[in-house]
Amino acid sequence: MSSTIGNVLKLSIFGESHSPAIGCSLDGLPAGIPIDMDALQAFLERRAPGRSKTATERNEADKPEILSGIHEGVTDGAPFAAIIRNANARSKDYEGLRSVPRPGHADYPARIKFGNWHDVAGGGHFSGRLTAPLCIAGGIALQALASLGITVAAHIASLGPDGIADEGLDELALDESQLARLRVRAFPTISSDAEERMTQAILDARASKDSIGGIIECAAYGVPAGIGDPMFDGLENRIARLAFGIPAVKGVDFGAGFAAAYLKGSENNDPYRIIDGAISTESNNAGGILGGISTGMPLIWQMAVKPTPSIAAPQKSVDMDAMQVAELVVRGRHDPCIVPRAVPVAEAVCALALLDALLEDGRFPQPDPQVIADR
Amino acid sequence: MSSTIGNVLKLSIFGESHSPAIGCSLDGLPAGIPIDMDALQAFLERRAPGRSKTATERNEADKPEILSGIHEGVTDGAPFAAIIRNANARSKDYEGLRSVPRPGHADYPARIKFGNWHDVAGGGHFSGRLTAPLCIAGGIALQALASLGITVAAHIASLGPDGIADEGLDELALDESQLARLRVRAFPTISSDAEERMTQAILDARASKDSIGGIIECAAYGVPAGIGDPMFDGLENRIARLAFGIPAVKGVDFGAGFAAAYLKGSENNDPYRIIDGAISTESNNAGGILGGISTGMPLIWQMAVKPTPSIAAPQKSVDMDAMQVAELVVRGRHDPCIVPRAVPVAEAVCALALLDALLEDGRFPQPDPQVIADR
Amino acid sequence: MSSTIGNVLKLSIFGESHSPAIGCSLDGLPAGIPIDMDALQAFLERRAPGRSKTATERNEADKPEILSGIHEGVTDGAPFAAIIRNANARSKDYEGLRSVPRPGHADYPARIKFGNWHDVAGGGHFSGRLTAPLCIAGGIALQALASLGITVAAHIASLGPDGIADEGLDELALDESQLARLRVRAFPTISSDAEERMTQAILDARASKDSIGGIIECAAYGVPAGIGDPMFDGLENRIARLAFGIPAVKGVDFGAGFAAAYLKGSENNDPYRIIDGAISTESNNAGGILGGISTGMPLIWQMAVKPTPSIAAPQKSVDMDAMQVAELVVRGRHDPCIVPRAVPVAEAVCALALLDALLEDGRFPQPDPQVIADR
Amino acid sequence: MSSTIGNVLKLSIFGESHSPAIGCSLDGLPAGIPIDMDALQAFLERRAPGRSKTATERNEADKPEILSGIHEGVTDGAPFAAIIRNANARSKDYEGLRSVPRPGHADYPARIKFGNWHDVAGGGHFSGRLTAPLCIAGGIALQALASLGITVAAHIASLGPDGIADEGLDELALDESQLARLRVRAFPTISSDAEERMTQAILDARASKDSIGGIIECAAYGVPAGIGDPMFDGLENRIARLAFGIPAVKGVDFGAGFAAAYLKGSENNDPYRIIDGAISTESNNAGGILGGISTGMPLIWQMAVKPTPSIAAPQKSVDMDAMQVAELVVRGRHDPCIVPRAVPVAEAVCALALLDALLEDGRFPQPDPQVIADR
Repeated sequence: MSSTIGNVLKLSIFGESHSPAIGCSLDGLPAGIPIDMDALQAFLERRAPGRSKTATERNEADKPEILSGIHEGVTDGAPFAAIIRNANARSKDYEGLRSVPRPGHADYPARIKFGNWHDVAGGGHFSGRLTAPLCIAGGIALQALASLGITVAAHIASLGPDGIADEGLDELALDESQLARLRVRAFPTISSDAEERMTQAILDARASKDSIGGIIECAAYGVPAGIGDPMFDGLENRIARLAFGIPAVKGVDFGAGFAAAYLKGSENNDPYRIIDGAISTESNNAGGILGGISTGMPLIWQMAVKPTPSIAAPQKSVDMDAMQVAELVVRGRHDPCIVPRAVPVAEAVCALALLDALLEDGRFPQPDPQVIADR
Repeated sequence: MSSTIGNVLKLSIFGESHSPAIGCSLDGLPAGIPIDMDALQAFLERRAPGRSKTATERNEADKPEILSGIHEGVTDGAPFAAIIRNANARSKDYEGLRSVPRPGHADYPARIKFGNWHDVAGGGHFSGRLTAPLCIAGGIALQALASLGITVAAHIASLGPDGIADEGLDELALDESQLARLRVRAFPTISSDAEERMTQAILDARASKDSIGGIIECAAYGVPAGIGDPMFDGLENRIARLAFGIPAVKGVDFGAGFAAAYLKGSENNDPYRIIDGAISTESNNAGGILGGISTGMPLIWQMAVKPTPSIAAPQKSVDMDAMQVAELVVRGRHDPCIVPRAVPVAEAVCALALLDALLEDGRFPQPDPQVIADR
Repeated sequence: MSSTIGNVLKLSIFGESHSPAIGCSLDGLPAGIPIDMDALQAFLERRAPGRSKTATERNEADKPEILSGIHEGVTDGAPFAAIIRNANARSKDYEGLRSVPRPGHADYPARIKFGNWHDVAGGGHFSGRLTAPLCIAGGIALQALASLGITVAAHIASLGPDGIADEGLDELALDESQLARLRVRAFPTISSDAEERMTQAILDARASKDSIGGIIECAAYGVPAGIGDPMFDGLENRIARLAFGIPAVKGVDFGAGFAAAYLKGSENNDPYRIIDGAISTESNNAGGILGGISTGMPLIWQMAVKPTPSIAAPQKSVDMDAMQVAELVVRGRHDPCIVPRAVPVAEAVCALALLDALLEDGRFPQPDPQVIADR
Repeated sequence: MSSTIGNVLKLSIFGESHSPAIGCSLDGLPAGIPIDMDALQAFLERRAPGRSKTATERNEADKPEILSGIHEGVTDGAPFAAIIRNANARSKDYEGLRSVPRPGHADYPARIKFGNWHDVAGGGHFSGRLTAPLCIAGGIALQALASLGITVAAHIASLGPDGIADEGLDELALDESQLARLRVRAFPTISSDAEERMTQAILDARASKDSIGGIIECAAYGVPAGIGDPMFDGLENRIARLAFGIPAVKGVDFGAGFAAAYLKGSENNDPYRIIDGAISTESNNAGGILGGISTGMPLIWQMAVKPTPSIAAPQKSVDMDAMQVAELVVRGRHDPCIVPRAVPVAEAVCALALLDALLEDGRFPQPDPQVIADR
């Protein structure tokens, strides 16, 4: 089993939806990176429910407690660790689910794998709640990357059965005005028109006791060329391996991605050019990655998020103990769409993958002694 | 850098397009699995060029030499290793490429990463040729899985800009007649009509000095439920991590994949049912995986292959030493479409990922002593 | 950096001596193992200071808080995690040490590696205190092994410059009376005479403001033959890799160990014999391991613990900022001998290494469903 | 199973004593390191049998064939791979051993683990012959370290039951005259008197159909301070994990090692001093490592090599199939002492561990483009 990942930067996620706490450890952060705790908290807020009219009003206290790794506001070289308390330890409310698996959730295969001991409450270790510690670690990684001039940004590219589309992130260069528009709103789109239409689609889904999914696009600007390794530790492999750890993600692609399958070589290849004495490409169907290694162009990738499995409408299932059909009604309030909440998680995994690759490449610069002297 | 992957079953790939040999080592195979060398060779032939009218006629001698790990036709528990000689060590033919990177290839970022020492000939370690040792290891894994009743099969689901479609693999159960039709032809489609149309599209691309891509669908039948681990070592993570190591792959998805982003929860969830005293699902949008763990339904996934970067038409590039624009004409014969050759590679990575997960789960049965007694 | 280790059973340790908490996560524990929290606490008490007349009276509240992985007293398959609060966050007391490294401690190289950000207080992440979470994880592993009939026991084999010797653990078979004598006393020796003499030696060391070291012998009884892997994942490699993570350990050997270098082959080889229809050896110089793999004989190994670096007497050091010599007096109360406290840590690392190897070998039996039914 | 090791520099060893070939792959070598093939061959010769009057005269052709990773005499960034052909595929000569395990060898536990498929000939994958590819990889690593000014040297510190001692390596600084004396002779001692006495002891052992062991001391000079990581990836952990992969090694210690257990803190601590404006220590009982991290002082460690298990005298064993006692006479010529041959292997593992740690630390300098321009 592995909730542990990374070569030089090693992340471990632990916790279950209804255990006393969830958390993470992140081993391999260089010393000397200043960490802004308010910025970290703001990042976590982007993931938390209850902020907008589309989300579930379940109350989650998502304020992390840092256990180690940061001393006087700066990483100190020791492994970073943080936890978040689970306020609602209501394991017994889910007892009925022990024998009737929810379609689209991990209940059934988890019971096969772990037997009767699997803590089915809220999904146990499979719960979307585990993306919170992933975001703590990712938030730290984002700040580390920012100190190197690397910016990561994600948004909802497409939402729902109608494929409501947002304006796409600039694939050729960092567009500050785009990011400004993205950051000004609580709902993660660049265009306000897209926000309105997507929000309505989510409310409609809730009204019909159903759920919808979407596609998230994520970009990383300022990644130097030459990062990543051939074959199994390329940037695509590293990002995909993390991204598929996000519940509900069923697809990951890079640059033109699945669309490249419909292009001709003359259309898909990115010709090289020289601008201001630097080499770049005229297009970026490669998504900033060739042979697993960064080209210096913006890194662009997408992940497909399936519609939330927990829907209010009755569903067909089986009673595993009695071995007969059973109808299931999932209780409690559930998000009709988790895509907005998954947007910061996409940034988190992108940052963790990039930082590990940068550290392995040896290019993460040594901490500046002047920083500490000036504090 | 990592051309090494796996938890219990550890694969290492080595070699370059024009080095003396390419090869692999595979560490962790249980002892006692009979290996049919003729079947392995036949599997490698599916990948080799020059077999059909669409491929390049470059001559590649792809007969592997087994160096260790197999004794008297059975795996003996020691690490398996095999090499394939490179017949054409023509490094100098590529000298002109040293400073002018080919668009869509790894030349440019590889030079940034490895400096002038990168052996650019034929793509060096980034060459599609490295999928040959990947297929040797995958071929061994396929035979190991077959001994457990697990069948892996892939085909071209869609080809070219027009999206020429093949009949889809059965997502609910192993359909022997489908596999029979798939296996009877050299070109990897179930339908002969699809073969004709796709073959024509490839010839057209060659005639226009261009290239096309496609989407490969792969299924694994007979995978028991409960295999794989939550979070970062789920079956999706394992398969994706290997698949993105195949040159030209730019996207991977599972089950409904990116299409799930356009479904409603009521459509995407797979209701449970009981058939012949066993639990299964009525549909299989999950692609046989929930929470990273197999459900017992067929495992279904897809990979997007971009059009071959090497096209005969002139392309715009730059001379990195002179720092000025340059036109590039890629010499030599190149496949206008590598999708047919990538089909067995998809099966290979699927098999390697599954076998590692099975071994880690502890369910790979002990070798049957009667097998050796009867030999 | 790696405070993370293991193939199937993955351990991560985090925390620093004076950070808010220290802890561990342990990923890969099978579900269904009953955990006795009182027994775990008792195991941790064996490591804690202040219990005997030889130890430091610094007050450490070592009661772990379980954060996840155990549900209703049984492991549930999700990663296990636990923390221990650090009661004394007195970082500023160590400020003077920031520029004057303590001989024998990690201060100097840690400052070179981590710059000025290294939290030098109490040794930061290098502190012996980090063996507490290692013991939590090890305590869980010990209980898992016990459920398979595997017993791990360690004691002080030799203490101090005079090499005060305890009776040796039985190398041929589990001797219950020996273990009974070992367990009855707070001081970890089999012989009470050894306890008296060793205790006196420790008190003498304290009186002379000095410290002493010793050698710990550890045995594992009931390990089935065939566990462990050749070459780099043999049981010796696995145990040594963990054991050298214990502060102050400077040597590890197996069976006859360094003494084997002085034996002839005819003396060191262990002849095979058959007793009660089972194969065993007449002697056990191999320490239960050949070729990295267990033989079924008791696993016997030793670790050398250097004398505590923190001594009360003044020492020569340098001021790294002023670049001139400086005298150092280490303040606070420190153990003149940490060997007694390291004994349970030896058992912990032995258990973790063995459990990982057992899980990788696939021999850890499936949890017994009857256990949960009966609760 | 793992014959694969390393974080950034990944080594895989494959092959068996009587399989067609043995070899290694080494993934993660930076590009641009010039490799002197004659020096590599000379290094392998130090390990090979048949060179001196004490060794077995079995004929082994140990000339490696490089398969990839080196282009025009310089590492090119692609994984390095090399093989050595096994000239003598005489598996059938060992048939009698299939059921009667040799004491002190891996035969018995290997058969339990791998069943009847284990290729027992010559020890299969457990054979000392597998140290040849370990030395190829180590030889490459040694050259990489030399390019950074790091020198690794090992010798026989003590041999046989009488503990014949060589002069010790200088623990405080590189002593060129010592290394010159060590390198001038075929037998790995600094003192010629030690060579004579040790050689005689080996001949005596052969005459009495027995074998002897010894202790090897290894030093690394010029290692910068700050290399290695706390806890489980310290230099001790890295070296020990590799060293215990060498057949016949039963103990590893660092600096004063097991002897430190008999020292007082005031004796064992190494006081700091300043010499020529640089910080060093007055003694080096730490062996150049504190808290797992290098101090800048010479890295000193030792490994204990047990006497060769294969002795000519008859031994007691059992017939595993008939389950009754059996006498065993090991046929063929075997070294009465493998210690001299293990000396270069100690250097190899030290170099591989150090290079991995250096690469992970990010301090391995970028290749010098001028080197290639001048060639």
